[in-house]
Parts: sequence; structure tokens; C-alpha cells
Amino acid sequence: MFKRLGRQTVQLPSCPRVVSYAGVAGKKEGEGPLKERFDYISEDSYFGEKTWEKAESHMIRQCFSLACDKAGLAPSALDYIFAGDLLNQCVSSSFAMKDSQVPYFGLYGACSTMAEGLALAAMAIDGGFARTTCAVTGSHFCSAERQYRFPLEYGGQRPPTSQWTVTGSGVVILGTSGSRLKITHVTTGAITDAGIKDANHMGAAMAPAAHRTLRAHFADTGRSPADYDAIFTGDLGAVGHDILQALFDAEGVKLGVNYMDCGVLMYDLSTQDVHAGGSGCGCSASVLGAHILKAMEAGVWDRVLFAATGALMSPTSAQQGDSIPGICHAVAIEREAE
Amino acid sequence: MFKRLGRQTVQLPSCPRVVSYAGVAGKKEGEGPLKERFDYISEDSYFGEKTWEKAESHMIRQCFSLACDKAGLAPSALDYIFAGDLLNQCVSSSFAMKDSQVPYFGLYGACSTMAEGLALAAMAIDGGFARTTCAVTGSHFCSAERQYRFPLEYGGQRPPTSQWTVTGSGVVILGTSGSRLKITHVTTGAITDAGIKDANHMGAAMAPAAHRTLRAHFADTGRSPADYDAIFTGDLGAVGHDILQALFDAEGVKLGVNYMDCGVLMYDLSTQDVHAGGSGCGCSASVLGAHILKAMEAGVWDRVLFAATGALMSPTSAQQGDSIPGICHAVAIEREAE
Repeated sequence: MFKRLGRQTVQLPSCPRVVSYAGVAGKKEGEGPLKERFDYISEDSYFGEKTWEKAESHMIRQCFSLACDKAGLAPSALDYIFAGDLLNQCVSSSFAMKDSQVPYFGLYGACSTMAEGLALAAMAIDGGFARTTCAVTGSHFCSAERQYRFPLEYGGQRPPTSQWTVTGSGVVILGTSGSRLKITHVTTGAITDAGIKDANHMGAAMAPAAHRTLRAHFADTGRSPADYDAIFTGDLGAVGHDILQALFDAEGVKLGVNYMDCGVLMYDLSTQDVHAGGSGCGCSASVLGAHILKAMEAGVWDRVLFAATGALMSPTSAQQGDSIPGICHAVAIEREAE
Repeated sequence: MFKRLGRQTVQLPSCPRVVSYAGVAGKKEGEGPLKERFDYISEDSYFGEKTWEKAESHMIRQCFSLACDKAGLAPSALDYIFAGDLLNQCVSSSFAMKDSQVPYFGLYGACSTMAEGLALAAMAIDGGFARTTCAVTGSHFCSAERQYRFPLEYGGQRPPTSQWTVTGSGVVILGTSGSRLKITHVTTGAITDAGIKDANHMGAAMAPAAHRTLRAHFADTGRSPADYDAIFTGDLGAVGHDILQALFDAEGVKLGVNYMDCGVLMYDLSTQDVHAGGSGCGCSASVLGAHILKAMEAGVWDRVLFAATGALMSPTSAQQGDSIPGICHAVAIEREAE
């Protein structure tokens, strides 16, 4: 059975189910609009560890444990873990999962990692390769800041288009059966380079990738934005959110008020000094694991398109004058009627 | 249809076919025992570019083009690319593929990337999600050296257990039909940490992961080493090769003379001053793309187990005193009788 619809989308006939999920956040994120939604908020940015990198790993492991606990599953019951993060050589996710004993596929999708992991985790079940799979990711403001930008102590000025790397983690466990939430479609992104070179303008670098993937999703499935109760991009922030709307507006397509961005939802942009909003693997992942899936189970939305976005650059590529290619993967999630 | 055999292995009933493949190498690799096997050997370590990172990207793009050309396929005919590399944020593979327009799954599997990509590329076809997929990776001695170790100009001494990062790239294109070579099984590795902390002793860090994956493969499939005409690990080098043999010997299992390591095959260890042998994503990838698949087509081996190995550490994790977790993914490849 060939499951492909058009160039970038596959339909999953078995509709893998969401079994459980969790979202963990840092102190600043825990003071934002989603503060009541997280499973755990750490007051300690070190998460009890001695370095930022170990803190990130600790947070991811904690989120994974919470999701396993909610599902009543031992990690050893998982058939595959799909995980990645932003750190060089993706060490926060691999060290977080290293004692899990679970067959492990390491990913690098930058801030799109949760959608990439969710896509492959769903495809592994639908393809008959697994009964239970897991998508894992996270990011930490302090480890990202020193790796990508400046030492925290430097206190560099940030332009208004810059974003704030979310300290947070999200984990979703999928299975052949589970909750009423099911994965129906996956639209895999192609790398899209709009030529943006300003690493403080990630929204502009990633919005064209989101535009391309969402457009492909609508074309491949014959759906329109109005077919979704809610559409979430990953971390375009306020600037990228508006660019994406403008790109669709120019084609006469209205994304409408149901379109939201996880980087905008994460913080109170007027008071939390995060400029254009949140970013990082943990942004869309923790919003999905703490907020979106919970709201879907509660009946707020029946059909959601989750479209996490990523910027595939490195400090080295930026220093060598390269532009910032973007990517966006979209996963359609539906709540089955009672 | 549930395709899982045991804890780590899946059997692929549709047996995705190898459509084409290519292997490209640098000058030093082109002076080794496999010199007649590569599709292209660059005399210029910069591959015509201005930086080592761009050179690595150029080499990967070139290898990808060669594989597409051999298959008579435009890149746009591919349904998915699975790609990754060793550079921070995997920029050499993402920049190499950024203009391909193909739905892209970014991977981080360190030096195991070719087996990880081949596994997922085969599963995407077997699951009905794609007709044509591609696994892409590579590494470059100079970009790896300055990222992981020292500036080249420093000329640091290397201990006898150290390995030499291969300048090379490998690409394999899979399809629902193609050559007589087919992918029959995938054994996905779990992360294995033997507690090794010496970054100049990667063979010791990765051999336990290879041992675990190969043992799982034999247990899950009911096969033994003697069922394979050849078993290749990725880049254990001479030291890791012997450790793996000793681990199996201790269990009374003989890997036999059909067991080889790509890092040992790549260089003449007695004359090329690479100490324990080759390493890097490009090591097993270019040996697969330039040598193993070609030899299988020529009838040298009918059944091969390709088990690429990776070390999931970063310079930061090493500096923070962490051990070096290893991973190994194995893919079984068979030549169909005429």
C-alpha cells in the first residue's frame, strides 16, 4: 500500500495513537502564559547539575520519565526512541537516553526536532516496525546562548528581531493504541534557503520554510487552513509569524486567527523581555507536550497541524558568511470522536 | 503486518533494493588499499572551496550527484533524503543537500550515520512511505581535526590507539526496484556506555556497542556470524576490531575471518601513519559506497552485515569529564540469485 499524497506528504492509514506526553520548563517559561500547563517547572536553572549541558540533559531525562510514568510504561517497553537537540553532537538528548536500553535513532532537525521525531515515530508504527515509540527533545537557554552567541556574563545587546531560547523539554509517546489523539498525516520539509544571513533574525530565515511545508501540506491533502481548528508553527516568533501570514496573504490564502506560533505563546512578549519570542528545540516540544495535546484531549481543538520549524546553521557556517537554511516538518493530529 | 523480530531487529518483507551508490575520497584515502574502488579521488583537500567545512559539503554534494547520475535519477525524483555528519549542527550534509528540493530528515548518528540513514531509508520504502530514498553522509579530516581536537598547525602527537578521520563520502539510493542487492533486516542500536573517557581510544568506546548490536542481530534473527559472507563494522580500527573479537571469543562465538572493519580496510596501517585506522562518518560510508556494494554486485559476497559504529560524545562532554557512549546500527544486505 503506497501511502504518499503528493510530493511531501504521507497519510498514515493505521493512525498511530498518542499514548502519553509531558512538557517540562525552566523558571522563566514557568512565569509565562503557559505556567499552569507544564508538568514540572524547575526553579533551578542547573536542574541540580554542575553545568548547563548536564542541566539540559537532566531536564530531558526528567521529561522522558514523566511521559513514561503517565503511560505506565517502563522505558524498556519502547521499541524506538527518536531524539535530538541543539547542542554540538546532540549530547543532551543522547546522554539523557543513554541508559534507557532502547533502540535509538539520533536526529538533527534543529528546532524542528519534535516534529521530525514525531513524524518518524508515527511512521515507524504505521510501517509495522514498532508498537510503541517515543519522540524526545529539549533546549536550554544557557547552553544555547554560550554555544551559539556569547558567554552569559558578556550581557550582549539583542536586537528586537532576536528570540529567546526556551529552557524546556517535550516528550511524546506513540502507540498502536492509546488516547483518542491520533497522527493522521506527516508532511516532511525540504530545506529552504531564503538567503537570510542575520542570526538574530531567525523568524525571517525560517518563515519561508514554514510557508513551503504548509503550502505542500494543503496541496497534497486537498485541505485548507480552515480545515484545522488550530495550526501551530514552532518558533517563528512574532516577526516570523507575521512574515508567514504575509506570505500566505500574498497568495490569497488566509491562515486566520487559528494560526499561532509556539514561540509567541511561550512568553508574555510585552513584559518578559524576550523580544520576538521563544525559540529552540524545547519551544515547540514543550508547548506540544504541556499544552496542545492536553487541550486537544480536553476537547478544545479536534484537528491540529503541528509544524515545527528549524534553522540549519551553525556558528561556523555563520562566521563563514553562509546564509541560514530553514526547514519545517508538519504533523496532523486529530481527536477521534467519542 | 508486524515486522519486528526480537528487541532490536526488523525484517523488511518488501526487501528494498539498492538502486545506485557512490563513494568519494580524499588524497590520502585514494593512496590506500581501496584506491581503485572510489568513484572519485580529490587531489585537492579543499575540493575547490575556501574552508574545510565547505570542502566537506562540496564532497558530499559531489558524491550525491554521482549516485543520482548512476541511477539516471534527478534529485527531485527522490522521496526522502536521510543525511547527517559530524560537524556541529550537521552543516556539511544540510548545506550539501539544501538545493535538492527533496523532503529531508536530518540525522545525528556520529560515525554510524550511514547505517542509520540506510536503515531509515529502507524502512521508509518498506513502510509504503516512499518509492525512492537516499542515505547521505561524509566526513573530512581537516574539519573534524579542528572541531574535535587541535588546529592542524599545532601538529599534536597522537597515541597508537588514535584513529584518522577519513576524508570521504558515501551515498546509497534505495528503491522499490533496482539492482539485485536488497536490504533484508535492520538492527537498531541502543546507546552503550562502557565508561571509556579517552577520546583517543574510540575503538574501545565503540566496540561494546558493536558487540551489543551484533549479538542482538544474531539473537533476533536466529543467525550466526557464519551465515554472513562478510561482516563489516564501521570504524573500530585495529584496536576496536580486536576488542570486538575478544568480546565474542569470551562468549564462545567466532566472528571468523569474514569479519572486517572499514577503518582497517581504508588505509595501509603499516605505511600510512594513521595509527589504529580510519574513523568518521565518511569511513564506513565510502567503503560501503565504493567497495562493499560493488563487490557484492560482482558476486564476491552474497550476504553482508554492515554495522556502522558511532561515538556519541562532543568536545564539551569530554571536557566536562563524561564518558563516551557508543552506538552501532546494523543493516543486512543480500544479493538475489540470478
